Amino acid sequence: MDLTPARGTRDLLPATVAVRDHVLATITEVYRRYGYQRIETPALENIERLQGGQGGENEKLIFRVLRRGLDERLAAGTELSGLVDLGLRYDLTVPLSRFYGNNRASLADPFRSFQVGPVWRAERPQKGRYRQFYQCDIDMLGEPSVLAEAELIEATTEALAAAGLSGGTVRLSDRRFLSALAARVELPPSSWDGLFITLDKLDKIGWDGVRAELAGRGFEAERIGRLADTIAELQGVEEGKLVDRLGSALPNLGDDVLADLEATVAALRDLAAQRDLSWAFDPTLVRGMGYYTGQIFEITHPAAAGSVAGGGRYDKLIGRFLGTDVPACGFSIGFERIVDLLGGPAAREAVAVLYEPEVPPAAVLAAARRLRAGGRTVSPIRRRGKFGAQLGRLEEWGFGSFVYLRDESADALEERRLGGR
Amino acid sequence: MDLTPARGTRDLLPATVAVRDHVLATITEVYRRYGYQRIETPALENIERLQGGQGGENEKLIFRVLRRGLDERLAAGTELSGLVDLGLRYDLTVPLSRFYGNNRASLADPFRSFQVGPVWRAERPQKGRYRQFYQCDIDMLGEPSVLAEAELIEATTEALAAAGLSGGTVRLSDRRFLSALAARVELPPSSWDGLFITLDKLDKIGWDGVRAELAGRGFEAERIGRLADTIAELQGVEEGKLVDRLGSALPNLGDDVLADLEATVAALRDLAAQRDLSWAFDPTLVRGMGYYTGQIFEITHPAAAGSVAGGGRYDKLIGRFLGTDVPACGFSIGFERIVDLLGGPAAREAVAVLYEPEVPPAAVLAAARRLRAGGRTVSPIRRRGKFGAQLGRLEEWGFGSFVYLRDESADALEERRLGGR
Repeated sequence: MDLTPARGTRDLLPATVAVRDHVLATITEVYRRYGYQRIETPALENIERLQGGQGGENEKLIFRVLRRGLDERLAAGTELSGLVDLGLRYDLTVPLSRFYGNNRASLADPFRSFQVGPVWRAERPQKGRYRQFYQCDIDMLGEPSVLAEAELIEATTEALAAAGLSGGTVRLSDRRFLSALAARVELPPSSWDGLFITLDKLDKIGWDGVRAELAGRGFEAERIGRLADTIAELQGVEEGKLVDRLGSALPNLGDDVLADLEATVAALRDLAAQRDLSWAFDPTLVRGMGYYTGQIFEITHPAAAGSVAGGGRYDKLIGRFLGTDVPACGFSIGFERIVDLLGGPAAREAVAVLYEPEVPPAAVLAAARRLRAGGRTVSPIRRRGKFGAQLGRLEEWGFGSFVYLRDESADALEERRLGGR
Repeated sequence: MDLTPARGTRDLLPATVAVRDHVLATITEVYRRYGYQRIETPALENIERLQGGQGGENEKLIFRVLRRGLDERLAAGTELSGLVDLGLRYDLTVPLSRFYGNNRASLADPFRSFQVGPVWRAERPQKGRYRQFYQCDIDMLGEPSVLAEAELIEATTEALAAAGLSGGTVRLSDRRFLSALAARVELPPSSWDGLFITLDKLDKIGWDGVRAELAGRGFEAERIGRLADTIAELQGVEEGKLVDRLGSALPNLGDDVLADLEATVAALRDLAAQRDLSWAFDPTLVRGMGYYTGQIFEITHPAAAGSVAGGGRYDKLIGRFLGTDVPACGFSIGFERIVDLLGGPAAREAVAVLYEPEVPPAAVLAAARRLRAGGRTVSPIRRRGKFGAQLGRLEEWGFGSFVYLRDESADALEERRLGGR
């Protein structure tokens, strides 16, 4: 029988889980100090909720679950969609929106949510991408001001630093800035989504690629040129001049957008003065999800290609579930990406109780219990094969020392170190 | 739009998650000291692996997942099973068997496994039972002696005690004893499974119910009588006499079975002398799963109806995946049941920074940061509505104190306690 996990999924071995648990505990402790409360939603959601259009391309990747009690033999003309009532969640944001609508009355206002857990996407399997992977999100629901943005950025950079990734760069932009930019070069609103999708690929395909793709979308060369010029003008601007420069480059940009940027920049400046991090306004930042409505941000780190965290404001998403809009902002750590960069906790002092098969279990367990009293990790292992070879295996398995239990009478056991430690 | 979770599932609110996380952290710490290593397997498994017969009735409750890339309109005569390639796991034991087969070369021997996570069963929704629920298992793979049984019992009782459930009772039996019992009253082996299924209901339907059901299965009254007499004879036997009494009541019982019982009993006696727990041989204990091959056990507690943990030896299950048998024994804590009995961690000292909307975010966050430096939980909350009413809400949401940030200049903030605390 084939023993490998289902295609595109993987088993997590003890050493891998130890790293993941350690990183997660570190992040969790930071988020708790900011008052983010962990919640859990079910892995399964009703299929209509998952297919409401909020998920963009991800909706094509949903694992769909059959209704129960169907006849094994299907009638002619049966439609596949009629057989399905549930799906596995493809992110944590759509379930959070439903959760908030369902439980709003008993939640704090604003509600600071912390979620971590698996999501599923039926992507074509490829190196380093899995069909089940963890997401790790904080969200603030109910806060209209950029206090939300600034706090989420502060908490996430602190969590990353605690996990071992200090020294990152916060890249900041605003969807409203991107819209103003597109409007300024007189692109029709119907073409903006296409523009953003192309611009989002800048780090992969470069400016030449972006120009070519925009030309392919039917954008005139003159407009592409003005777009590129405006973006260039806004890159690397000294922080004190950013808001002025934005205002003069894009007179159509709302005062509220500028005020929000000014406030977030002030908070980032404060933070950068106290922590090992830098920040930049990045006029080319897009972030993929279509539901963002305001500021967007991500964190890059010298140790990682691509970003290690990303998020933004999505004031219209919860309204699609609830009927009335609720201001919302979230920040997601790329958990799978960062655990690959980070190490585990210091190894525990594990002791093997190597016992001869004749020693009764009660005596073996009593010896282990005595050694464990100091809080150490202690496991009995049956003596077998050549002594030296077995000690080698114990070391491989992570034991630092052992006691040898030859018979029941041994009251004072001598503990011996293993190998080159 | 309907905002409730999918039928039979539920949202976990912050207070519930806090209890669950606390209980889980406590259990995890105990299991780690015994050397159990946490692993994770994917939620999805290939459907043939889940439907191999190991899961008994649970296999009827599998959530089945559609293949990707199917035509929306199905051809006449399509069979439902042909549309399915994956299913959600209904327990953690079948995936563990596959995991062990797949990763054996890099695991310690014996391998001490710790798993905790959700499983899914499409049961008819009823009070207190959910279609997604957590299981929490430790298993020892590769150890043929009852050292495994005795250690699993010790670790699990210690984990339960650490979580707040000391004073439980370990109930012990052996599938081989049940088989000898059935053979002794000359029931044909083909009828044994039916006998065990009925006996398993004893605590629900009583002896009258068991007699009636066995009669309905075609068992003669005389044999039912002898069965009941032998069971009665073996209940409440003084511990020093148990093995002798078993041997004389069932001369067909193998010496290995008696030696195993004697060894486990010796370990339990040791343990009961040092910990707040009791134990009993329970000749009516069956445990539902068909894959058990040796000793079986569960833990009952005065605070809970039914058992709080259960397990046993299953030496033939891994062989069905691997081709060669691997001795195996496991113990599962009824996680959902015990978290309902237990409280959460001591509440954290949470401080609200109540700020007027005019105060710039950077100043609000700076005040929060100063208060958070001591390791406390601190969250800014915007000032709104009547002051007293808002303080009442803060208290409801779990805040113990607050500072009031009226303007930017406030350098020394006075912290005030909330309500009757």
